[in-house]
Amino acid sequence: MSKQAIGVVGLAVMGRNLALNIESRGHAVSVYNRSRAKTDELIAEYPDRKLVPAFTLEEFVDSLEKPRRILMMVKAGEPTDATIASLKPLLEKGDILIDGGNTPFTDTIRRNQELAKAGLHFIGTGVSGGEEGALKGPSIMPGGQRDAYDLVAPILTEIAAKAPDGEPCVAYMGPDGAGHFVKMVHNGIEYGDMQLIAESYAVLKQVVGLSNEELGKVYTEWNQGELDSYLIEITSKIFSKKDDETGKDLVDVILDRAAQKGTGKWTSQNALDLGAPLPLITEAVFARVLSSLKTQRVAASKVLEGPQAKPLEGAKEAFIESVRRALYFSKVISYAQGFAQLRAASEEYKWDLDYGTIAKIFRAGCIIRARFLQKITDAYTKDKALANLLLDPYFRDIAKNYQAALREVVVAAVNAGVPVPAFASAIAYFDAYRSERLPANLVQAQRDFFGAHTFERIDKPGSFHAQWS
Amino acid sequence: MSKQAIGVVGLAVMGRNLALNIESRGHAVSVYNRSRAKTDELIAEYPDRKLVPAFTLEEFVDSLEKPRRILMMVKAGEPTDATIASLKPLLEKGDILIDGGNTPFTDTIRRNQELAKAGLHFIGTGVSGGEEGALKGPSIMPGGQRDAYDLVAPILTEIAAKAPDGEPCVAYMGPDGAGHFVKMVHNGIEYGDMQLIAESYAVLKQVVGLSNEELGKVYTEWNQGELDSYLIEITSKIFSKKDDETGKDLVDVILDRAAQKGTGKWTSQNALDLGAPLPLITEAVFARVLSSLKTQRVAASKVLEGPQAKPLEGAKEAFIESVRRALYFSKVISYAQGFAQLRAASEEYKWDLDYGTIAKIFRAGCIIRARFLQKITDAYTKDKALANLLLDPYFRDIAKNYQAALREVVVAAVNAGVPVPAFASAIAYFDAYRSERLPANLVQAQRDFFGAHTFERIDKPGSFHAQWS
Repeated sequence: MSKQAIGVVGLAVMGRNLALNIESRGHAVSVYNRSRAKTDELIAEYPDRKLVPAFTLEEFVDSLEKPRRILMMVKAGEPTDATIASLKPLLEKGDILIDGGNTPFTDTIRRNQELAKAGLHFIGTGVSGGEEGALKGPSIMPGGQRDAYDLVAPILTEIAAKAPDGEPCVAYMGPDGAGHFVKMVHNGIEYGDMQLIAESYAVLKQVVGLSNEELGKVYTEWNQGELDSYLIEITSKIFSKKDDETGKDLVDVILDRAAQKGTGKWTSQNALDLGAPLPLITEAVFARVLSSLKTQRVAASKVLEGPQAKPLEGAKEAFIESVRRALYFSKVISYAQGFAQLRAASEEYKWDLDYGTIAKIFRAGCIIRARFLQKITDAYTKDKALANLLLDPYFRDIAKNYQAALREVVVAAVNAGVPVPAFASAIAYFDAYRSERLPANLVQAQRDFFGAHTFERIDKPGSFHAQWS
Repeated sequence: MSKQAIGVVGLAVMGRNLALNIESRGHAVSVYNRSRAKTDELIAEYPDRKLVPAFTLEEFVDSLEKPRRILMMVKAGEPTDATIASLKPLLEKGDILIDGGNTPFTDTIRRNQELAKAGLHFIGTGVSGGEEGALKGPSIMPGGQRDAYDLVAPILTEIAAKAPDGEPCVAYMGPDGAGHFVKMVHNGIEYGDMQLIAESYAVLKQVVGLSNEELGKVYTEWNQGELDSYLIEITSKIFSKKDDETGKDLVDVILDRAAQKGTGKWTSQNALDLGAPLPLITEAVFARVLSSLKTQRVAASKVLEGPQAKPLEGAKEAFIESVRRALYFSKVISYAQGFAQLRAASEEYKWDLDYGTIAKIFRAGCIIRARFLQKITDAYTKDKALANLLLDPYFRDIAKNYQAALREVVVAAVNAGVPVPAFASAIAYFDAYRSERLPANLVQAQRDFFGAHTFERIDKPGSFHAQWS
């Protein structure tokens, strides 16, 4: 019997769609699921595809060419450990396990080390793009042993999304947990992008008074320019969708309680551990949490008054353009923070991440795909050592030309009582980052006063303590 | 030989000061340190005090009345585990180990469970007030077995700080990790308070143009009113302190790079885990991190321009009063977030925390001691089920009367290019919390569009999915 070049374990929607994607590139694929029903369903649904079912792990492992390439698409956490434990005794040195789940990078580091002791390769890979991306072409962020990556690269390259210039959206990220780390930051950035768009919507609706129809037009127009991106595109479409039941605009029927699956939270918690400032994405995570407190908010809205709504002063069109600029500049600031976190992680975990390549593989397949990612790639291509995106000439120009708009929008929202936590955090970060001197000298004075924690001086190195009282 | 009612293990500055504090209330205290030198020093320095040295743990344990009360003041983490492991075989059922270190509450929960299996009591207690507080009267936040607490309560009550009304600043917080959790939130709140004061300083200096002498006067005056607190008091004194070497104002000689010991970070990370919105304190933590990137900031300041400084429009005195109101209202918002986190934790970990009592024991001894804590106690005394401090009548009035000032200060700072991340986050939280409707409906629409994550509707319960494209 001929053997397959790759097998997929776990046939929930992401696993089956990736198997179908691989098969569509001309590869026969071994497939296995712990409960047989899912395997039977898949084969019944696609009888003509080269999917080779296995009903025991022994059979599955035996059906693969050596070194074996096994893509696990099982739930993160305990199920992943259990799958690895079942497979491990059946594998041979040099075989390659690939975890394509939504796994915390610290788990991936641990598993990579454990399996390496047994001579097994382990690749943890981010896969972004949801169900449709898995089927047609996701953005893929693999980390692990470089030589193991080289053995799976041909297949991953075939199934990955293609950027507008034809380049496949997959690249080797770095050792052990690097791939899952990049995916985590991708998701955090996604939280930031979505919150910024939500705030632009709130300002356009509550400060400018735009209707849903007008909102749809604004986002459609924005999607033609610098903001061209998947999220702006779907936003523009959302405003014209009608509710089948009531005939109302669906967006108005949807409850304002945003859910989350935790990866934004991980990004913030890791940034706190690394000491990498990530306030914007963190505000976005907290904004989702706050939105979920709907009952409290409704009660609070009845007793906590805000400012009287004032009609917008000045021209509507000009202000809408300010909101566009505020959104774009805030997005730049958010990515500056996210990529600075990648840099901090690369140094901390010794990954030697390539920031330009990371931006490149985000250009298609994934949720944050956007035209402006090319600008990030360009910036790091020019200067790999760039400490912060805001220092790159292109982004410096955006900062120079758009900061007045961001200030204007924050001021208008604060005066109108419209919450813009991410916009406000963006301008605070920008102003702090470009501050030669911050008021942190006072914080150090206080710490030395009450706890003898010492301070540094501006005029010479060392630690000093004063007799304050 | 007579035995002592309590012993202290670990004679670094906090341990020795607590031992001296206990002794000063009329108790003989057994003292032990792993390296003998510290014990010898302490005895040599205080030959007339009733400190009973022990040079082996056996001798130490044997010197104590039963049930033994042992206060451990050793480094958090591995050293605490090592100390417990050494003591455990020497102890008997009913003995009480007290960890007064700066321990993550999750470690305390674990240790409490492990020791309970051996019949040993374990109290994890927050001790706030630094070296001086330890010596003269700290704020004490103990958690663990209630009956064990009752056996150490008399001594803790004697050594605790006394509030202005004479009440000791110690109370039983709740089971296992409750004490260390409350201490952690205390520290997070401290980060928030310090950042808010630093922002008020930045605005007064950079927007109003106050000199250090004027700043000292402003904070001295503020300390007479609602803002009356230890941190405002020391701030007022900091501005008049001269540098011994240069004769300049010391505050201007101190480097603007704020350090941290990690407890603010823990508070934010836990809030993210609990799903309790804590944006202000988290902005404060990130502000410290950002301050530490001094080299990058100096470089950025040369290429990233901000707005031209404009002279303050309107009366100086009126604006200074606005800054005072902004500071007080933001502080209220920060505590509202911190106490909401306590409530979320109390529910999650089944602690039944008493929020009014917690505010009460913060009134003296600790860094965040302040007159306004009485208002928090009053609020929870009136309504223990209060979902958020902002809903209490007193704080509602503050919100009503001071929000215009907070908006004014944020607007002035944003326009002037002065970073005020915590002030801006405060008003965003306030406006979001009082929003019946947030733009999170758009976020849910996006999530359903790209990932079929479903949404809720405003008109009926359930989860729904739309065909978007």
